[in-house]
Amino acid sequence: MGLNIAQKIIKKHLVKGKMVKGSEIAIRIDRTLTQDSTGTMAYLQFEALGIDKVKTKKSVAYVDHNILQSGPENADDHLYIQTVAKKHGIYFSRPGNGICHQVNLERFGIPGDTLLGSDSHTPTGGGIGMLAIGAGGLDVAVAMGGGEYYINMPEIVKVNLKGGLVPWVAAKDIILEILRRLTVKGGVGKIFEYTGDGLKTLTVPQRATIANMGAELGATTSIFPSDEVTHAFLKAQGREKDFVEIKADCDATYDEEIEIDLSELEPLAACPHSPDNVVPVSELKNIKVNQVCIGSCTNSSYVDMMKVSKILEGKTVAENVSLVISPGSRQVLNMMAQNGALSSMVAAGARVLECACGPCIGMGQSPSTDAVSLRTFNRNFEGRSGTVSAQVYIVSPEVAAASALTGHITDPRELGCDAQIKVPEEFLLNDNMIVAPSDDPDKVKVVRGPNIKSFPKAKPLSEIVVGKVLTKVLDNITTDHIMPSNAKLLPYRSNIPYLSEYCLTPCDKDFPKKAKENNGGFIVAGSNYGQGSSREHAALAPLYLGIKAVFAKSFARIHKANLINNGIIPLVFKDLKDYDKIDEMDELVIENALDQVNNSGVIVKNKTKNEEYSMLLEITDRQKNMIKLGGLLNLVKSNK
Amino acid sequence: MGLNIAQKIIKKHLVKGKMVKGSEIAIRIDRTLTQDSTGTMAYLQFEALGIDKVKTKKSVAYVDHNILQSGPENADDHLYIQTVAKKHGIYFSRPGNGICHQVNLERFGIPGDTLLGSDSHTPTGGGIGMLAIGAGGLDVAVAMGGGEYYINMPEIVKVNLKGGLVPWVAAKDIILEILRRLTVKGGVGKIFEYTGDGLKTLTVPQRATIANMGAELGATTSIFPSDEVTHAFLKAQGREKDFVEIKADCDATYDEEIEIDLSELEPLAACPHSPDNVVPVSELKNIKVNQVCIGSCTNSSYVDMMKVSKILEGKTVAENVSLVISPGSRQVLNMMAQNGALSSMVAAGARVLECACGPCIGMGQSPSTDAVSLRTFNRNFEGRSGTVSAQVYIVSPEVAAASALTGHITDPRELGCDAQIKVPEEFLLNDNMIVAPSDDPDKVKVVRGPNIKSFPKAKPLSEIVVGKVLTKVLDNITTDHIMPSNAKLLPYRSNIPYLSEYCLTPCDKDFPKKAKENNGGFIVAGSNYGQGSSREHAALAPLYLGIKAVFAKSFARIHKANLINNGIIPLVFKDLKDYDKIDEMDELVIENALDQVNNSGVIVKNKTKNEEYSMLLEITDRQKNMIKLGGLLNLVKSNK
Repeated sequence: MGLNIAQKIIKKHLVKGKMVKGSEIAIRIDRTLTQDSTGTMAYLQFEALGIDKVKTKKSVAYVDHNILQSGPENADDHLYIQTVAKKHGIYFSRPGNGICHQVNLERFGIPGDTLLGSDSHTPTGGGIGMLAIGAGGLDVAVAMGGGEYYINMPEIVKVNLKGGLVPWVAAKDIILEILRRLTVKGGVGKIFEYTGDGLKTLTVPQRATIANMGAELGATTSIFPSDEVTHAFLKAQGREKDFVEIKADCDATYDEEIEIDLSELEPLAACPHSPDNVVPVSELKNIKVNQVCIGSCTNSSYVDMMKVSKILEGKTVAENVSLVISPGSRQVLNMMAQNGALSSMVAAGARVLECACGPCIGMGQSPSTDAVSLRTFNRNFEGRSGTVSAQVYIVSPEVAAASALTGHITDPRELGCDAQIKVPEEFLLNDNMIVAPSDDPDKVKVVRGPNIKSFPKAKPLSEIVVGKVLTKVLDNITTDHIMPSNAKLLPYRSNIPYLSEYCLTPCDKDFPKKAKENNGGFIVAGSNYGQGSSREHAALAPLYLGIKAVFAKSFARIHKANLINNGIIPLVFKDLKDYDKIDEMDELVIENALDQVNNSGVIVKNKTKNEEYSMLLEITDRQKNMIKLGGLLNLVKSNK
Repeated sequence: MGLNIAQKIIKKHLVKGKMVKGSEIAIRIDRTLTQDSTGTMAYLQFEALGIDKVKTKKSVAYVDHNILQSGPENADDHLYIQTVAKKHGIYFSRPGNGICHQVNLERFGIPGDTLLGSDSHTPTGGGIGMLAIGAGGLDVAVAMGGGEYYINMPEIVKVNLKGGLVPWVAAKDIILEILRRLTVKGGVGKIFEYTGDGLKTLTVPQRATIANMGAELGATTSIFPSDEVTHAFLKAQGREKDFVEIKADCDATYDEEIEIDLSELEPLAACPHSPDNVVPVSELKNIKVNQVCIGSCTNSSYVDMMKVSKILEGKTVAENVSLVISPGSRQVLNMMAQNGALSSMVAAGARVLECACGPCIGMGQSPSTDAVSLRTFNRNFEGRSGTVSAQVYIVSPEVAAASALTGHITDPRELGCDAQIKVPEEFLLNDNMIVAPSDDPDKVKVVRGPNIKSFPKAKPLSEIVVGKVLTKVLDNITTDHIMPSNAKLLPYRSNIPYLSEYCLTPCDKDFPKKAKENNGGFIVAGSNYGQGSSREHAALAPLYLGIKAVFAKSFARIHKANLINNGIIPLVFKDLKDYDKIDEMDELVIENALDQVNNSGVIVKNKTKNEEYSMLLEITDRQKNMIKLGGLLNLVKSNK
């Protein structure tokens, strides 16, 4: 039986397990990437593995998140990453060189390889046929050390593209249409594989936009074939030798299938406050706009920027609009600076920012109170822009640029002839902001500024686990509750002691204080504990505060994995009513813990109330081993 | 007897007083400028005057300080300024259009006119023969309302420039040499007027650099003649009609004279942490550099940027250096985007920021801990970069660019042939980011976001002034102690209620609380109270907290004026030993206050200790009137 593209790549990289939907597999990782907000921790964890040099084919460290530098913390982080990369065989993309996913696509992506990145939009690499997956920093650290990556074998969804886009309809509208149909939960546990006769009409930058925003479906990743379009792109990047053809077999099968007739799509927008809240732009006409932001890893390619420039050329941004443009990479910026496109943008009144994530991650350019902000980004969660009351719409660059000129949400089809922009036959090649690792690593001193704190390390499981219930929280607690992330805290991602002062404070402002006074303890939670962003800091901060176990009605998948990775036991109430029986400051104990975790159930005693509760420990044997050894790092070290 | 340039302009604008050194004069203000960090308050104060339309020839509101927008506050301020400007006859320079002083020089400055700006580097306009003075927001508000500006007639210092600069020596080195000789206090109460045969060798951008950084001498302003060089510059800006020749009479006299032989100068640097801590760059060679920042109102002209681009062309920024460039205006940026200069910078690895003040005012790009940062800016005060431990050196663009390439402080004379850059014969003209005021102001609604709070208004003096001593502070308290300003507080310059929570807290963390609990009261201070920055928020916050008088051993001049402008009585101990007799929470009273302030002395009774103190009230009759009426705004309104 024939294989699809995802199966082919997984099969080639399979280390453990069987390619049966839902069962655990381990795959070999060829390449890694990190960005700076997750990277500092990933490299601290890599250092803890005690491995001299990365074992991947190539690992690249980018700086694109924390570049405002409103204090020494950001620059300290950059310097740490630059020096640790140089010492351990990692390439370093200097600040200003661009957004990790854009630069990786341009300069480093290889069809058919596996890429693990400590950023949720790593699947952008699927645009050139990589199996590119986003993961926590610790998983990336382990992969840099040569360790395999564990996932459950995803369902493979065939996305059959028919026909071609009509003028002014963009790749962004394709992925918005899929989000409209499937919602932000529609991709969980799935890989979206794009096929069909519509494919040949889509350039690599367009494919990358679609793959990128597959993350908003909750998908494991998205992938396109590596075909003649891919070949032309890599050739234009001076990387023809990196091309490998990868196509699904004619008789390949899929777990699911959806079909999209490209010719039927129209310009779409995701309305506040969710990427799946999608309606046609034509229904939003005349909504007054205060800000337009163009850029982000979703829509900052050369082709996107050239199209925007053509729309703006000779015109002036509406008086009520602040137009902000962040090109995706230095390659894009420099080509625009050479061919006059940047001049057209500046002349029209665009504010051109550094090549970085910028406003997409709330680092600057927060709009005014109650503002309507149109953004070519991937997420429009409430408050993510830095302005809680802002109304953020997600649109294509075409809609964004047209609306910046008129001052209200505008269907670009009103502009007349579409600006046809081709992918260039030769990109401007200049990798002088990529620093190669040292040939003489012993001479490299890793610089650790005061913002670089060592991260907390879990200890092997004790025979008796005892402590107080430090806090009891309700249902649907997100990782944003557990470890808030905002412009003020983001610079401290390498500083767990500082961050931990804010741990769970949105639910219980005294939690860090209580944890310290009681030398750690337990958390009791309702259902869906740890939903939302995958940030592992939501496990690291509790670990730092001495949390030994979390008792919940249920856990969100990724947070549960992060807890286990950090040696914190995630236990689920067998009888949900037991949740009500426990009070804050009750003293709980797990006796014979080393034995008990071998089972699927654990008995927890409440010494204060003289009660017993049955708890479920629904984890794999590998994870049980992790809990016993004290987390993933210790497991990896024990295997060396 | 002939007149010098300063005298000619002052004479033409003199409204009150005599041009006798040190005596109070009032001059008519032709033009004003504001930036956003001081502008919000200036416009709130202007609104309080109740005047429909500005009475100046032209007033321009710029946005260049708070453009990072890490939250809605900045954008709220921008929107307020934009709408209030449109309603009241003020031109608005949109965010991204550039630094106020650079844009004003290019597009609005007129030789021979007076300019009052709410920014200490307003004297940049002296580069084209304007009498351009920096002042508090309230003074600018009054000037917009048609009110005169009061100063003591300054001494006029003749700066005789001989010969010409040798290659790689810059205008920056001229002003650094003057700072080296005269120190940061050397210009207080003085106007520096440039003359001599060396003048003709200096372009307008060079002259502007020198006039700009005259502010660091503490000077009232600096001024150059308006000559054929000025004519050529204005012509190239499409403003030949704005040219007026202004030269000193042959027999003009001056109060002082200094001479500088330009041919003897060499590249200089101001070492940490003061602009007058100047040594030759050749003495600093081999100091390793971590960051280089090029830009600011001092050195961001087209000529400066082109020179930097030439130096960087075809090379790569050293691995240990982060090179950040902020062009001064959109005109500069757009010309560079058109002629390839920007491309050269980007190719070399420069990080190009928005056209704004940026890192010069600590808004972003804080270097790493203990970093050496070379900056083409005007101030290198400790901590101003946002990194307390950073070592900041002030240098020319030539030194900065050369050092960025080598990675250590470098004398640009080592580079070989100087890059000769001429002022262009035609600048690129595009004023589409300047919004003209409305023809129909009634239809303009001023938008006040939640960060725009009404400012505190002083009340007319009561017959009895009574209250408690809320705090007692030592000598040399700066306005940074009274009203701290940093990246976290700067976005709240239009929000005095918020700012007041930090008033005097570096000296007494409970001061705001005590002021509120006691319904206001008094401050007792040592000598030189209120030194440092001229910020009027150091008077507005105490006013908001109900401070009625400050009793000090002595006051810094500008802060004293700000207190009076806001109706707070500045009293000086006649017997300095009385300072020791007063304790915190003593209850003091000034009886017959309305009568007493007519005298030069005031009796203050200590009800707690049953004592009396003689205090001096050393202010002009106009100022006494202000105290009685409750500040400058009320005085101006009473004169309407």
